[in-house]
Amino acid sequence: MAGARLAARLTRSLAYQLSRTAAAAAAAAALRRRRDSVSLPRGSFSKMACSIGCSGDSKVTRVLFCGPYFPASTIYTKEYLQSYPFIEVDEVGLEQVPDVIQNYHICVVKNRRIDSDIVAKATQMKIIMQYGVDVNAATEHNIKVARIPGSKTGNAVSCAEMAIYLTLGVLRKQKLMDTAVNQKDLGSPTGKTIFGKTVLILGFGAIGMEIAKRLKPFGVKILATKRNWSSGSLQCDIEGLVDKKGGPKDMYELAGEADIVITCLLQTNETVGIVDNMFLSVMKKGSCLVNIARGGLLDYKAVFDHLESGHLGGLGIDVAWTEPFDPDDPILKFSNVILTPHVAGVTEYSYRTMAKVVGDVALQLHSGEPFTGIEFVN
Amino acid sequence: MAGARLAARLTRSLAYQLSRTAAAAAAAAALRRRRDSVSLPRGSFSKMACSIGCSGDSKVTRVLFCGPYFPASTIYTKEYLQSYPFIEVDEVGLEQVPDVIQNYHICVVKNRRIDSDIVAKATQMKIIMQYGVDVNAATEHNIKVARIPGSKTGNAVSCAEMAIYLTLGVLRKQKLMDTAVNQKDLGSPTGKTIFGKTVLILGFGAIGMEIAKRLKPFGVKILATKRNWSSGSLQCDIEGLVDKKGGPKDMYELAGEADIVITCLLQTNETVGIVDNMFLSVMKKGSCLVNIARGGLLDYKAVFDHLESGHLGGLGIDVAWTEPFDPDDPILKFSNVILTPHVAGVTEYSYRTMAKVVGDVALQLHSGEPFTGIEFVN
Repeated sequence: MAGARLAARLTRSLAYQLSRTAAAAAAAAALRRRRDSVSLPRGSFSKMACSIGCSGDSKVTRVLFCGPYFPASTIYTKEYLQSYPFIEVDEVGLEQVPDVIQNYHICVVKNRRIDSDIVAKATQMKIIMQYGVDVNAATEHNIKVARIPGSKTGNAVSCAEMAIYLTLGVLRKQKLMDTAVNQKDLGSPTGKTIFGKTVLILGFGAIGMEIAKRLKPFGVKILATKRNWSSGSLQCDIEGLVDKKGGPKDMYELAGEADIVITCLLQTNETVGIVDNMFLSVMKKGSCLVNIARGGLLDYKAVFDHLESGHLGGLGIDVAWTEPFDPDDPILKFSNVILTPHVAGVTEYSYRTMAKVVGDVALQLHSGEPFTGIEFVN
Repeated sequence: MAGARLAARLTRSLAYQLSRTAAAAAAAAALRRRRDSVSLPRGSFSKMACSIGCSGDSKVTRVLFCGPYFPASTIYTKEYLQSYPFIEVDEVGLEQVPDVIQNYHICVVKNRRIDSDIVAKATQMKIIMQYGVDVNAATEHNIKVARIPGSKTGNAVSCAEMAIYLTLGVLRKQKLMDTAVNQKDLGSPTGKTIFGKTVLILGFGAIGMEIAKRLKPFGVKILATKRNWSSGSLQCDIEGLVDKKGGPKDMYELAGEADIVITCLLQTNETVGIVDNMFLSVMKKGSCLVNIARGGLLDYKAVFDHLESGHLGGLGIDVAWTEPFDPDDPILKFSNVILTPHVAGVTEYSYRTMAKVVGDVALQLHSGEPFTGIEFVN
């Protein structure tokens, strides 16, 4: 409720400010409409920026996506807004962002980092939105930062499905299956079933809950950790899903019982490197690790060493320590390691839902209506 | 009951016959025990065959696996029987089988084909067993053929998990994910969720049921065909799992509603090529096909053409038209086609269970006890 009132107040204020910049934006918008591609040669925006200040007769609200990663976010938002000529959606690579950010009212950062130098140039910026990934830098520069609640985006569902895909991929030895096909082997490698296994979900939030709901009928025992089980934020029958609950301190004990560990934690100062030598060494020999949350949750060296020793039986990760991850990194040489390109939440379902939220915010900002579907974080 | 009595009678008969060949087998067995490897140079068995007929003082029951595919079947059976020196387990390639088959009492054919010429040489053979795959040829040559019921092997569970792996692999665009990792893309390709889809299970038997149980909590609508829904052979809440039931004639109508079709049919004269041009053309544009049953269920050319036209959105197959499948076959060039090496049922859980059945049959044949865990098919 308080959020809605804040949003409404913010909107009125933004609409006023926007009206002052509308004329400047219009000329650039006309120029922009002639381009079809979302990727532009370096410098083209600088030229466009010079045209700002020319007269124009229509307001244009301009949305900037920082590319080139997660392209579906831009594509689907453009599609959603294609019948609104007074909204412009563009994507540029992060290196071009400082040259053009002054022309935009909304910025979707995706997984990139916009530092204070860049934010200082964003003179017309009203809202910076994260697209399922963190945004921190802008908060300090007096620009509103909004998030799209995961519960409304299908992100948890998409990530849960990906966690199960990676779990199956590790258990069935995806790389060895590919090798077998290429070598004309048949009926090999021998995989493992999810059936009969014990799964530890580290961080039983919305994603963990969706994983548990789907894994339960595979015939597993589910262990899970959560900081506060009594918060009641999860809408599910926790008792029916989770066989053994624990707090953060119980994770070592629970890890010792698990055949499969799936990390679903937020990455914070407390959780960076939480899957370390100690944690890995208490995991059962041959057990598997799946990470669909953030790469930094895992201590690279500890994971590498436990793969090399054979203690860790397999690793399936959608997120890595640096992104995009070096495809020649030695950890990818292990035949029991599989990596996907940070796509756990990247499904048409999830991204079209988010595109609608971003598109609606652009429309609302343009018309001065209250915002819907977002939560301000500052 | 009738089966058990038949088995008991057969066993007594076999035990009598075995006693006559025991001496011959013993010498070869002693020779065999010196070998560790399951794969032998061509000709070594011919030499061993010459030694048959020498005197010996212990009976040995000899089990032949036709290799080299599905190696876990041999390995786990050897492990299960390792403390019984009077049981010998060997594996040879199919091309060596005619040279050695006369020395064996039990044969596990796996997916190979033993034709009548070879069977005619199997003078001591009592039982030929299939290992989760079809055996037809021997039936005509007066040797008992036994199968291991799928319900006792974990085969259905393993295949169901594989079907879900392949479904997720196709929806998430496995090959494009690998390309993205190698090209340092991030957040691409955009996949699809299972959530919200309609899944048609063609042939709702034990495997289909296990698939439905697991897919239901993903948030899908399940359609299924089955020849006889009133047979009551499935132990599940069909009404709770299947949203729309049909017979074989309803499959075209149901295919028109499905986003994902999973084939779980037995391959018979009636079902060969059942997924043909007509079937594929009624499937929705962009829908996906998963086959974990038998390669011949799909009409190769029809599938190829519908991939080429873009009508078929993806293909995930664990079984192919010839096996092992040519890794350079043009159908594998499509970026939305994934193939695994006939491993749907090949899990440690499933194969150790089957190894126990085969091992127990060998022990029962040796001692003249009634057989357990198998069903005779002739």
